[in-house]
Amino acid sequence: MPTDFAATRAQFDLPEGILYLDGNSLGPLPRNVAARLARTVTQEWGTMLITGWNKAGWMDLPTRIGDRIARIIGAETGHVVLGDTLSIKVYQALASALEMTPTRKVILSDTGNFPSDLYMAEGLCRTLGDGYELRTVAPEDVADAIDDSVAVLMLTEVDYRTGRRHDMPALTAKAHAHGALAIWDLAHSAGATDVKVAAGGADFAVGCTYKYLNSGPGGPAFIYVAPRHAETVRPALSGWMGHEAPFAFDLSYRPGNGIERMRVGTPPILQLAALDAALDVWDGVEIADLRARSIELCEAFIAGVEARCPTLTLGSPRDPLQRGSQVSFRHPEGYAIMQALIARGVIGDFRAPDVLRFGFTPLYIALDEVNAAVEILAEIMASDAWDTPAFKTRAKVT
Amino acid sequence: MPTDFAATRAQFDLPEGILYLDGNSLGPLPRNVAARLARTVTQEWGTMLITGWNKAGWMDLPTRIGDRIARIIGAETGHVVLGDTLSIKVYQALASALEMTPTRKVILSDTGNFPSDLYMAEGLCRTLGDGYELRTVAPEDVADAIDDSVAVLMLTEVDYRTGRRHDMPALTAKAHAHGALAIWDLAHSAGATDVKVAAGGADFAVGCTYKYLNSGPGGPAFIYVAPRHAETVRPALSGWMGHEAPFAFDLSYRPGNGIERMRVGTPPILQLAALDAALDVWDGVEIADLRARSIELCEAFIAGVEARCPTLTLGSPRDPLQRGSQVSFRHPEGYAIMQALIARGVIGDFRAPDVLRFGFTPLYIALDEVNAAVEILAEIMASDAWDTPAFKTRAKVT
Repeated sequence: MPTDFAATRAQFDLPEGILYLDGNSLGPLPRNVAARLARTVTQEWGTMLITGWNKAGWMDLPTRIGDRIARIIGAETGHVVLGDTLSIKVYQALASALEMTPTRKVILSDTGNFPSDLYMAEGLCRTLGDGYELRTVAPEDVADAIDDSVAVLMLTEVDYRTGRRHDMPALTAKAHAHGALAIWDLAHSAGATDVKVAAGGADFAVGCTYKYLNSGPGGPAFIYVAPRHAETVRPALSGWMGHEAPFAFDLSYRPGNGIERMRVGTPPILQLAALDAALDVWDGVEIADLRARSIELCEAFIAGVEARCPTLTLGSPRDPLQRGSQVSFRHPEGYAIMQALIARGVIGDFRAPDVLRFGFTPLYIALDEVNAAVEILAEIMASDAWDTPAFKTRAKVT
Repeated sequence: MPTDFAATRAQFDLPEGILYLDGNSLGPLPRNVAARLARTVTQEWGTMLITGWNKAGWMDLPTRIGDRIARIIGAETGHVVLGDTLSIKVYQALASALEMTPTRKVILSDTGNFPSDLYMAEGLCRTLGDGYELRTVAPEDVADAIDDSVAVLMLTEVDYRTGRRHDMPALTAKAHAHGALAIWDLAHSAGATDVKVAAGGADFAVGCTYKYLNSGPGGPAFIYVAPRHAETVRPALSGWMGHEAPFAFDLSYRPGNGIERMRVGTPPILQLAALDAALDVWDGVEIADLRARSIELCEAFIAGVEARCPTLTLGSPRDPLQRGSQVSFRHPEGYAIMQALIARGVIGDFRAPDVLRFGFTPLYIALDEVNAAVEILAEIMASDAWDTPAFKTRAKVT
């Protein structure tokens, strides 16, 4: 049965008069989250108190939700766990991967990676000392830069600015052929594309949930470890929740079973409850349908903007197979144009120096909304409505 | 004006018929949290969407709340920030401290420390390699074990099992005299005792908020860095939120101003909102009053139990100045006794092998509740009510 996107749209509360094309920054509020949080707070925390850890199933939420996300990212059941932030999960994957490739010292990444991933790698290299190095090349040069010096290939599948999508299976295969491991950051893939971490051969994958998975501001991150590594990987962030027996209170660390060992501290139950509720929207969604609809929306937006706004330059790959679920256009006055759009109710975002980003998420964006956004953008460009001090003065950017 | 503990008690929702002496595991639900969360979800996330980061002040919550906690732990304003879990904050403090003492390789801790702190130190030593070592001694031997080989003294101020409180100023001074730094874990101190990190000389302090600060299950942790280190400390977990300009998206990391650099990833806004609301209870609380009342409650409990239950052995220091805000008693059948207590509505907890733990938090526990708990415990012990298979069979322990 094809996915019913009108039904998924009905599960979101979106403000009247808003065309929300920024789900790639922060997903909107699914309609059932408030009630679930109220229940978690009042009925679970309020009345069960400490016993909520067992009675309300809090302790197992990180792996139960992990299984729900596994389906969305094409992972094997039982190999994804939630917790921490994406930056921490990047660090965790990277530290473990480097320990598995002890004769090599190079982390290979690209300049299109999200900066926090690069910063975390930088910090880890400094802690490791001893010649460890983060090497970054342009995104299009990654394949050629994979050689036998590389310990770990660390990439974000979909570029946060351009939406350019790396070829996970091909790059991973090349990394493996050279004896390297591959870590994939799915921040802009999970819930946005037909990402397949198992088929793609990823050794580790990490991602956040507050974008296309709609878990709310600061929702927890996830980590995937390929089954072939699950019982041998050693966590560098060896917290008690990843211990084989957390409540034995042993003085020495023993890694827990499989993916459990990638847990660190006490899980954030309120954020996890919000995420768990948010994932209900996904129950009837086929990922192949999502991908097809996403491409349809993005193509319509590109065609419309290019036909109507000749001064905007496409900043995303033209081939839909090489894009995620966002489209970027470039303009030297991109900041002001985005402010003008926001003032008209079209919410995208701006990324320095000149990128206008628009995320298209079939769960709650339909074709007529894409057309309406094109119309408003075209009006703004035709009338130079962006060209006023009110829009050109930069506020603190998020 | 002395603190009005009847007024603080009125700000909590506690289930009828429950004597909750487990706030040292998970604090109960403050009455205003549900409304604050509902507002954050529905009015902020739901209607502001991505603009909530600025409009609703989400971006600054970690430092704004840090200032509220600073008062409770005797820290300077502007030097505490929230985020991550306590285990991550331990790692972060430890990695930074070791980088500041480059000629030394020993982390000194004690066997009474919370295991996760030891595990994180173990993991960091493995990542650092090169002779780094976690050395643990018995709590009473810590002072003598501080010598010129020690890089970092890492202690939890109040022992999670016995409630024994280390002398922070004396041990920190001795560490400094030997050229070492001191990291204090305040998990069982913050909101429980008159902890004074600035006066105590701590270089770093970390703690959790879901115990005595009542932020709910999995509430975020905090970290304090002494002002003298604030602008020189280098974060090992160098995430984008700790960058000098997170939204410049530079490819290289530059630490942010002062405590901001200890931020890592996107902050957990729902948990932070719950914490922020929970801290309202503290607005009228003088820490000296809290400490005095806490001692009064603990002393009454010890006197009552010792008078009525001769087979229970005090597992906490007898001198109140050497205790935090919890009292432990030991008994070989401690597990069953705790189950019998819970069945009667007295919620404490059990820690292997034989520890019954009772937390006394003046914010919502009064003297008549302490006396009622003593009475129930005495009845259970006098009647051997714990001696049934129903109580002796161990369930999964939290």
